[in-house]
This record gives sequence, structure tokens and C-alpha cells, in this order.
Amino acid sequence: MFAIAKSKAERGVWSVDEPELQKPEPGMVMVDVIAAGICGTDYHIYRWDQWSSGRIRTPMVIGHEFVGRVVAIGDDVTGFEIGERVSAECHIACGTCALCRSGNAHICEKTEIIGVDRPGIFREKAIIPATNLWKVPDAIPDHHAAVFDPVGNAMHMVAAADVRAKDTLIVGGGPIGLFAAAIAKAHGARSVTVQEPNQARAAIAQSLDIDLVTNPRHENSRSDILDVCSGRGPDVVLEVSGNGAALNAALDLAAPGATVALLGIPGGPVELDLGGKVVMKGIRLLGITGRRMYETWFQVEAFMLKYPELIEKVITHRLPATDFAAGFQLMDDGACGKVVLDFDIFKQEAA
Amino acid sequence: MFAIAKSKAERGVWSVDEPELQKPEPGMVMVDVIAAGICGTDYHIYRWDQWSSGRIRTPMVIGHEFVGRVVAIGDDVTGFEIGERVSAECHIACGTCALCRSGNAHICEKTEIIGVDRPGIFREKAIIPATNLWKVPDAIPDHHAAVFDPVGNAMHMVAAADVRAKDTLIVGGGPIGLFAAAIAKAHGARSVTVQEPNQARAAIAQSLDIDLVTNPRHENSRSDILDVCSGRGPDVVLEVSGNGAALNAALDLAAPGATVALLGIPGGPVELDLGGKVVMKGIRLLGITGRRMYETWFQVEAFMLKYPELIEKVITHRLPATDFAAGFQLMDDGACGKVVLDFDIFKQEAA
Amino acid sequence: MFAIAKSKAERGVWSVDEPELQKPEPGMVMVDVIAAGICGTDYHIYRWDQWSSGRIRTPMVIGHEFVGRVVAIGDDVTGFEIGERVSAECHIACGTCALCRSGNAHICEKTEIIGVDRPGIFREKAIIPATNLWKVPDAIPDHHAAVFDPVGNAMHMVAAADVRAKDTLIVGGGPIGLFAAAIAKAHGARSVTVQEPNQARAAIAQSLDIDLVTNPRHENSRSDILDVCSGRGPDVVLEVSGNGAALNAALDLAAPGATVALLGIPGGPVELDLGGKVVMKGIRLLGITGRRMYETWFQVEAFMLKYPELIEKVITHRLPATDFAAGFQLMDDGACGKVVLDFDIFKQEAA
Amino acid sequence: MFAIAKSKAERGVWSVDEPELQKPEPGMVMVDVIAAGICGTDYHIYRWDQWSSGRIRTPMVIGHEFVGRVVAIGDDVTGFEIGERVSAECHIACGTCALCRSGNAHICEKTEIIGVDRPGIFREKAIIPATNLWKVPDAIPDHHAAVFDPVGNAMHMVAAADVRAKDTLIVGGGPIGLFAAAIAKAHGARSVTVQEPNQARAAIAQSLDIDLVTNPRHENSRSDILDVCSGRGPDVVLEVSGNGAALNAALDLAAPGATVALLGIPGGPVELDLGGKVVMKGIRLLGITGRRMYETWFQVEAFMLKYPELIEKVITHRLPATDFAAGFQLMDDGACGKVVLDFDIFKQEAA
Repeated sequence: MFAIAKSKAERGVWSVDEPELQKPEPGMVMVDVIAAGICGTDYHIYRWDQWSSGRIRTPMVIGHEFVGRVVAIGDDVTGFEIGERVSAECHIACGTCALCRSGNAHICEKTEIIGVDRPGIFREKAIIPATNLWKVPDAIPDHHAAVFDPVGNAMHMVAAADVRAKDTLIVGGGPIGLFAAAIAKAHGARSVTVQEPNQARAAIAQSLDIDLVTNPRHENSRSDILDVCSGRGPDVVLEVSGNGAALNAALDLAAPGATVALLGIPGGPVELDLGGKVVMKGIRLLGITGRRMYETWFQVEAFMLKYPELIEKVITHRLPATDFAAGFQLMDDGACGKVVLDFDIFKQEAA
Repeated sequence: MFAIAKSKAERGVWSVDEPELQKPEPGMVMVDVIAAGICGTDYHIYRWDQWSSGRIRTPMVIGHEFVGRVVAIGDDVTGFEIGERVSAECHIACGTCALCRSGNAHICEKTEIIGVDRPGIFREKAIIPATNLWKVPDAIPDHHAAVFDPVGNAMHMVAAADVRAKDTLIVGGGPIGLFAAAIAKAHGARSVTVQEPNQARAAIAQSLDIDLVTNPRHENSRSDILDVCSGRGPDVVLEVSGNGAALNAALDLAAPGATVALLGIPGGPVELDLGGKVVMKGIRLLGITGRRMYETWFQVEAFMLKYPELIEKVITHRLPATDFAAGFQLMDDGACGKVVLDFDIFKQEAA
Repeated sequence: MFAIAKSKAERGVWSVDEPELQKPEPGMVMVDVIAAGICGTDYHIYRWDQWSSGRIRTPMVIGHEFVGRVVAIGDDVTGFEIGERVSAECHIACGTCALCRSGNAHICEKTEIIGVDRPGIFREKAIIPATNLWKVPDAIPDHHAAVFDPVGNAMHMVAAADVRAKDTLIVGGGPIGLFAAAIAKAHGARSVTVQEPNQARAAIAQSLDIDLVTNPRHENSRSDILDVCSGRGPDVVLEVSGNGAALNAALDLAAPGATVALLGIPGGPVELDLGGKVVMKGIRLLGITGRRMYETWFQVEAFMLKYPELIEKVITHRLPATDFAAGFQLMDDGACGKVVLDFDIFKQEAA
Repeated sequence: MFAIAKSKAERGVWSVDEPELQKPEPGMVMVDVIAAGICGTDYHIYRWDQWSSGRIRTPMVIGHEFVGRVVAIGDDVTGFEIGERVSAECHIACGTCALCRSGNAHICEKTEIIGVDRPGIFREKAIIPATNLWKVPDAIPDHHAAVFDPVGNAMHMVAAADVRAKDTLIVGGGPIGLFAAAIAKAHGARSVTVQEPNQARAAIAQSLDIDLVTNPRHENSRSDILDVCSGRGPDVVLEVSGNGAALNAALDLAAPGATVALLGIPGGPVELDLGGKVVMKGIRLLGITGRRMYETWFQVEAFMLKYPELIEKVITHRLPATDFAAGFQLMDDGACGKVVLDFDIFKQEAA
């Protein structure tokens, strides 16, 4: 069985031949993977940076954003049928800690992540806990369903910040920033601005027909943002870049009382003027990780059904799974939105 | 007329003789000051630190926490009577900006603060905008009414964080931290811990009959806090110290999903592990300044009516206004809770 | 000066000749009325129903939704210039009660309503408190600016209910229901359904390109709604009809946990199955009146700037102010969306 | 094995001899019942009223509020040990519907209730799903732990309404109303009033040292409530009586903008002046049922640890389980707060 794995503790990922899977245990479901998105996390693992080299035990099949088709069902699992299309939440939470029992499973401290702490779904078949599966409505095409997870990150952030009638600044135009821009627009933001220095990504942001796409290195960027934001600065900032300097600039620009959602992970500590820029301005900072289980999934499904054209614009590349190296190269070049790998090719060959 | 002023651009404050006030303009009300609290802000001005020396134009009468009695009323002011007791919100907001018009006057960018940007109330009589006055119920004694403002800071913070059924850690046991501890207890916190190295303040915190008072320099402080906080760390942190290291320690200790209210003003930028301690833990940071106008005042009044014994314990010293130097010395020594100056002495002499 | 007034205590409204206005008092601003919407409240007064005949003291100039141009400014008013375009909040709240001081001026018990309790704006010129004016951005055309008030009712309701990613049912397709449908769509509702038996109004709802317009008298209406609403019934109901039977049917259909906003005023008491349909289902009912001052106005402005085409579709008729009788006839026939009267004709004649 | 059951379809409940239980199935845990509370629901079943006679299939062991000790554990259950004390959520939700997956399991439409839809816990031993168990801290005594469930109803209501700094009126002084009064006091209500005509219950309310206990049939009741409630009426109403007339009176009395939580189940439809009392006053009505799983349980535990003396006052009677008939008689007479039955007697006999 074809799979993509972190086989060695060095830069890169490699195709491997995995043994066929056994019948799923109780509570588990086996799926044929149809398509899978390459996540920023996969790219971190590919680069073998400090975080990933400290966490991943090689060899490890990677990948966690996907859509698949149910092919086998564990003994005590009810509610699923062979042939149904599903995506899945990749955070396997413990289910019994105080966080899990109070609606905060997304920050459970015992979480295992598929493709990070346990084998991932960049392979022909995978086995997933039934609790984490999400049935995909027929109206959502495969390559959209493959990115439920990152659209979920963006949705979690946008929903938590509440952009309705607000001037909204998105710092960073990678796939999650772009999905966030699309969602902010769909949720009635007064204006949506994306700040992104990379021209390829800025062009994708432009295609979403938002109010402003701006290069933070350009002289007029700050005044352009203020012009769009009622002259007062953004009411909502969605920080997806993980760049400390960009965060400080955004805090400076933000209107008093603004909500600043933080999803990007800085590489190290960040120095903030908490007194002048957070306390005195009455700013609210929200750490955002994962997706709320499963409110976020309902919200993503609603968005995907309503705005397929926006999802479509952010998915810039679809490649056969066997061309995964080209996918990672696109991410290295920053020349893409979301890249989706097609695992259906193996079935087509078989047929 | 006796007043306490920042007369010179150097450490200290001095008594001055001010001319009698004229009849209040339209919209304004004149009060006889009965009693006034010394705020941390007054102490900053006394010390002539970087912030105060950059903002205050000498000479300036200081002071902004007080209770007084209405003695003259501007022409078009309705709803007040001579003799009524009042306190006042010291933030004079513009009333017309987008923040003021959307319920956020406490962070209005055109705010002038009494005793900072315009003459203060450390004097026998003062003139205040009628909009900012708060009528004091008879059941609240003068020295409690004099501290509506700092109890309001504490209330704003505790109400925003919502401590109901939560393990709550208060970082810093100065007057606002102590008031916050009392309010957190009254609002149904699961546990209340105050972290304070100064022994005099720690003793006041102990008197509030809360769950734990701990010295952060002691070896067991961290494990003691965890013991009180269900083993998981505090769900709510109220940061009143402005100490960056203490904030980092609190973020480390906080339970995932915790709310961290920031009221203390650090002396400079603070380095934070945003990725590991805020984003990945799903932490919410709330910048808190001033008091919501006037929801917070209703909340403070309710608290003062219900828990006078807790207010009483935090007000450790009452001095004649002419002994103000002793009051500032107490603050220098950290040997006090809240210090209230009695301005009624001038009326008593006259009578 | 031309005006439209309730001159007599019987069905109808009449044109009257009003004396020219004097210079505005302090705090007040005089405007030339450009255009004004006919509100359901105006129509109630026209019909002289139980509510209006009990409240209005004749003679009374009516009307309260408008856009105008500043032509004179009271002595102490700052921040306005001659020639600026403005609309206005028609609720003149007291400003000093506990509700006004805690962000709830829209339900102040001492409110006076323009065109109900004090002279209205269906006339060439009117005088309005400066506090209640709203400056209209250039990009918003006159006839849109004339309906800030009813769009504000709709916005207040939709914002309070929070339709993001929710299946939303709007009961009643009059102007406020139609505006609500447009806003619900713009705020990212999962689906928007309007239930309306009147065919003319249903046709306007259809033009908004929402998910379903349904006639509650048709056999399949209930199952059609369920089909659109994920099979579970609406998560949000916006009740604009004031029809008790329709409300009961909506409560029956609503998903457990639904939010039901009530804006329509029933003619008398309504019998509800509170136990089975509200308590056991965990339903939330929100009474909605007026507009939040002035959060709602910021939200309406954002919506008008972003979605002019939706506003345009709901304004079905524009008539010269002198043809007001035709406007009221349209409302009698139920053959219209929003009707706007043009008061600019008097200036054009003069020019 | 001793049990109390609805054996016949007529008024009454009877002791029955049940066979010993088998080893628990996977996912289940067997407990020795230590003590159990008699709920209003049990009393409805006892009276065999319209609701209970329509829902219960006789014979059915009743009872659902309890504390017990783990005596056997199903094969795949982890995290429990023999001898641990536990209480349990009596709503067995489906776990897979949209409500369960979005944090609303308490209103799952497929819920089965212990002691209503499946055998209850008024017996020596019972088998409960492990997911629904709640471990009881040592500091909470048995008879308090036995009433986690009704304290949870009260907590759910008080927490949803948010009484902090609010004048709070509780309509109905049965056990849930009394627990609600205690919690409202502990959560910082500005004032707490209980309205209850039954003198025995009113006396228990008095013992809680709240602000006012009033008999709605007395002439001064209304003005007494207004006096306590800042002259403006209650900001929060907690309706526990299910009495339509009392609800209408409370809506009339409530301050504009009030929150009215509805927990009592009226016997039939209730006629409400929705226009004048809900819409125009901007009132919020919250249907409350069950307990949030499991946020409410954390909140109850925090309250029980902090305020045992308040719980103690509401539990007025403790009887051997074999004297259950006396317990139901007390409820018939309205002469009690909460009645707890002691099932430990069977173990003591054995020992």
C-alpha cells in the first residue's frame, strides 16, 4: 500500500510501501483515502524544523486532512455504512479529562494528532476512530471535503473573533489566512484586508474580491489599511503569520477594544508592549488552536455548501499523490494556496 | 483652599493654597470633597516616574478617587440636589467618537483623566461634569464611597474574566488585587489565591478568608497553587502586578482555556511564549483599563452594599488630608492596603 | 411648510401647512428632510388602531425614518456642519436612568419617539437632538439612508440572534422581515427561509436569492422548511409577523436549543406551550425593540455600504411626499416592500 | 434486592423485590446505592399525573438522584476503581446527533432518563453508563452528593441567567428554587428574593439569609419586591413554579431588559402579553432543562465544596429507604425541602 512517510530524521518525506491494514478494532472505521490536503504541519515535518524534530518519532506516515470512503467498520460501531464519504477531526482527544468534559476537547492535554503522534492518512487506506468522523454531504466535492480541517482552523478563528460588521485585518495570506478572508467576507465583515508580502499569495487573496490586499513592506500599507478601516484601524485582527513584528504592528494599528485572534505559531518568544498596546487599549487576545469539536465542523459544512467558489479559489493545485514531492516544492516556493493530493488514482488503476 | 499638587517636576507632592472656585458652568457640579483615596496613579505621579513625568503638566492638583457632597449646580443640570453625596468616574470621555457611541467610553482615545490631565480632587472643593457623577446610597459609609474608582477597576477585571465556579489566581496583592480577591470570592469563584511577596499585603489578603495566600519566592508556591486549583492550574488569572516574569509564570501555570485579565502596566515590553503558552493552550488575554461606564458602577454599588466587611479590611489607613505625606510614605513602604485621606476636617473646623 | 399629520382622531393622515421652524435650541440641529420611509408604525397611526389611538395626541406630525441635510445648528452643538447629510435615531431616551447608563437606552422607560410622542419628520424641515443624529457616508444613496431605522430594527434582531452558520426562518415578509432576510444572508446563515402568505411580498423575498420562500398555508410548507433546515428545523427564528399562531407553529418546528427573536407585536395575549416547546426544548426567546444605541447604527452602515443591491430590492416604491396617500394605500394592499417618500421635491421647486 | 417501583398504573409507588444484577456490560458500571433524593419528577410519577401516565411503562423502578459506590466495572471501562464514590447524570443522551456533537446533549431528542425511560436507582444496586458517572470528592458528604442532580438544575438556571450584581427574584420555593436562591447568593446577586406561598418552604428560604421571602398572596408583596430591587423590579427572574399567573406577574414586575429563566413546567398552555411584557421591554426568556454536560457538574461541585451549610439547610429530611412512603407524604404536604432516602441501611444490616 502506497504511503508518504517521514522515514528518516532529516529534511524530506518519502514514499513507502505499507502492509495492508487489518479489520478495524471496536470503535474504529477503515477508509479508502480519496484526497488529502498538504498542511503547514506536514511542511514543518518535511523541513524537519525544531518543533517537528522534537515531536515526531520516525518512521511516521504523515498527513491528516482528507476525505475518504468507508470500507470496513469495527464491531460495535453504529451509524456508518460502507461507501459513505467522510472526513475526520485529526485531534484524538482523551474524552474524559475536565477539558473534554466541558466542551474544550480541542485543547485536551492528552490529545494525539493523526499524522504527528500516530500514523497519518497520506496513504491508500487508514483507520480512524468513529467518534472523529464527519459525514460529507453529496454537494461538497472531494477536493473541498479534503480540506475540512484547515477551513476548520480558519472558521474557529473567525467565529471566535466575530467579524460581523467589523473591519477585519488578516495578517498572513497562506491557505488558512485565505480561507479566513473568505469566511470573514461571508460572515458580514465591514471590510476584509489581507496583509501578505508574497505576490503569488497576494494574487490569490485578490481573487477573493475582498477590500484590500496589501504588502506590509510597502510604504503606504499602513495608511491604506486605515483608509479601509473607517480611519480607526481594524476592530478584528486575525494573526496567521506567526511573525512577531507583524503582530506588534497589528496591535499598534488595531482600534481600541479590538479582538486579536492568534493562530500563527511564532518560532520563539515575542516581545509585546502589553501596557500601551493591550492593557490601555482594552485589547482582547485569543489563542486559537484546532477546531471546536464539533461546532466548528457544522460551521465549516455550512460555509462549504454556501460558498464553494471561495473554497475553489484557495485550492490552487491538485496533484496525483505520487507527485507529492512537487507539492512540497510548491510550498517551499510559496507559490501556491492549498495543495491537494489525489489518492483516488490507486482505485482508478485497480478498476 | 487646601489642595495637594504636583507643583514641581521632581519626586514628591506638596500642599498648595488654591483660590476659591467659581459657580459651575452649564453641565458641571461643584462638590465639597469628604474623603479621597490615594491611587497607585497618584503614587506614580509622586515618584515622578517615566510615565508621569511624560504626561503631567505641572503644577497640577492630583487625586481622582473620592466622595463628596453637592454644593453648587450648573445652570442646565437636572437630577441633582444640594447636599447629595456623590462619587465620580474620573475618565472624562468625549462622548461622540465611535468608541463612546458603542459602549466603550472607557477606552475613548480623547479621554481626559481628573488629577492627571485636568485638576484633581485632592482639595476642599472640586467641579465635575454632571454626566460623571454617581449618587451614593446612604448605606455606604464615606470611606467606602471614596474608593468606588479602584473597586471599579477590580470589578471591571473580575466581571470581564467571569470567575463563577473557577479557580482564580490573583497576581499582586496591592489594593486592586485585594479588592479583586474580595469580589472573586463574592462572585462564587471555586477558589481564590493571592500571590504576593510583600508580607504586610499578604497579611491583608489572609484576612479576607480566601483559599490561599502565597509568596511566589517560596519553593512550594507553585505546587500549593496547583493543589488549590483542582490540580490543573487556575482557570482565571487576574494580573495586577505589571510584572512580566510573574505573568509568564502565571501563563505557564494556567489551565488550558484559561482567561487571563491584564490590568497591571509593565514598565516596558514583555517577552511572552505566545506559541506554547497562549496559542496552543487556547488562552484568552483581556486588556482591562478603567471602568465600564456605567455598568461597572452598578456592580460596585451592589458589592459595597452586600460586602462592607470586605471593603473595610482592604482600607487599612485613614488619615487627615493634611497628613498626606504620611500616606505616600506608607505606599513607599508597601505597608498598607488602601489609604484614604479625610478632607472633611476642613468643614469640621469651620463648623 | 408642507407636513403630513394625524390631524383628526380617525382613520387617515392628512397634509397640513406648518409654520416655519425657529433657530434650534442648544443641543438641537435643524435638518431639511430629503426623503423619509413610511414605517409600519405610521401605518398603525393611519389606521388608528387600538395602540395608536391610545397613545397619539392629535394633531401630530408623523414620520420618523428619514435622511436630511443640516441647515441650522444649536449654540452649544459641536461636530456638525451645515450641509452634512444625516439620519437619526427616533428614540429620544432620557440619558440618565439605570437603563440608559448601562447600555440599554433602547428600552429606556422615559423614551419619547419622534412622530409618536413628539412631532415627526414627515415635513420639509425638522429639529432633532444632536445626540441622535447619524452622519451618512457619501456612498449611501438618499433613499437607502432614509431607511436606516427599519434596517436597524432588522439588524438588531439578526445580530442578537446570531445567525452565523445557522438555519434561519423568518416569519413574516414585510419590510423588516425582508431586510432581516437580506442581513441574515450577509451574516453567513446556513440557510434563509421567509414564510409569507402575501404573494407580492413573497415575490420580493424571492428576489433576494435566499434558500426558500414559503406560504404557510400550503400543505408542504412545513416539510419544505425542514428540508432546507438540515432536517432538524430552524436554529434561529425571527418572528416579525406578530401572529400568535405563526409563532406557535415556529416554536413547534424549531430545533431544540433554537433562538427565537420576537419583534412583531401581537394584537393581544398569545397562548404558548411553554413547557413542551420552550422549557423542554431549551429554547431562548429574545424580545427585540428599537435599535441598540448606537452599535446597531454602525452595523447598519456597514451593511448598507456592502450590500446596496439588497437594500434596493426591498425598497419597492418611491413617491413624491405629496403622494403620501398612494403610499399608505400600497401598505393597505400589502402590495409593496418599503415605500419611501421624496421630500426633496420642495427644494427642487425652489431651485 | 429492595427497590421502589411504579408497579401499577395508579397513584402510588411500591416496594418490590428485584433480582440481583449481572456483571455490567462493556461501557457500564455497577454501583451500590448509598443515598438518593426524591425528585419532583418522582412525585409526578407517584401522583400518576397526565405527563407521567403518558410516558412511563409500568412496572418501572424509579429514582435518578443518588450517590453510590462502584462495585463492578464493565470490561472496556477505564478510569474507575472499585470503592469510588460516584453520582451520575440521569440523562442518557445519544452522543451522536447534532445537538450532542455541538455541546447540547442536555436537549438531545433521543435522551433516555434513568428512572423514567429505563430502570431507576431507587434500589440497592444499579448499573449506569460510565460516561455519565461523576466522581465525588471526599469533602462532600453522602447526602449532599445524593442531590447533585437537582442542584445541577438550579445551577444550570442560575448560571445561564447570570445573577452577578443583579436583583434576582425566584418564583417558587421548592427544593430547586431554594437551591437556586443559595447559588444566586453565592454568585454575587445584588439581592435575592424568594416568592413562595407555602409557609414551611418560606421558612426554609428565610433560613438561607437572603434579602426577602415574600408570599405572593399578601397585599404588600409587589411593593416589597420593588423595594428590594432598586425600585426598578428584578433584573433576573428564575421561574421554578410552573405557574402561569405567577409568570405573568413576574414579567410585569421585571425591569426592562431582564432575563427570565423558565424551569418550571406549566400544566398546560400559558397566555402571555408578549407584545407589552416581552417585546417592548426587551426581555429574554430562557428555557432551562437538565444540566449542561458536564460544565454544570463542575459548577455544582465547586458550589458544594464552598457552601455546604447552604446545601444542608435545603435538605430537611433524611429517611431510611424503606420509609419512602413517608417521604412522598411529606412532598404531598409541601412540608419539606429536599427529602433524601438512605439506601445504606441494607449494607449496614449485611455488615
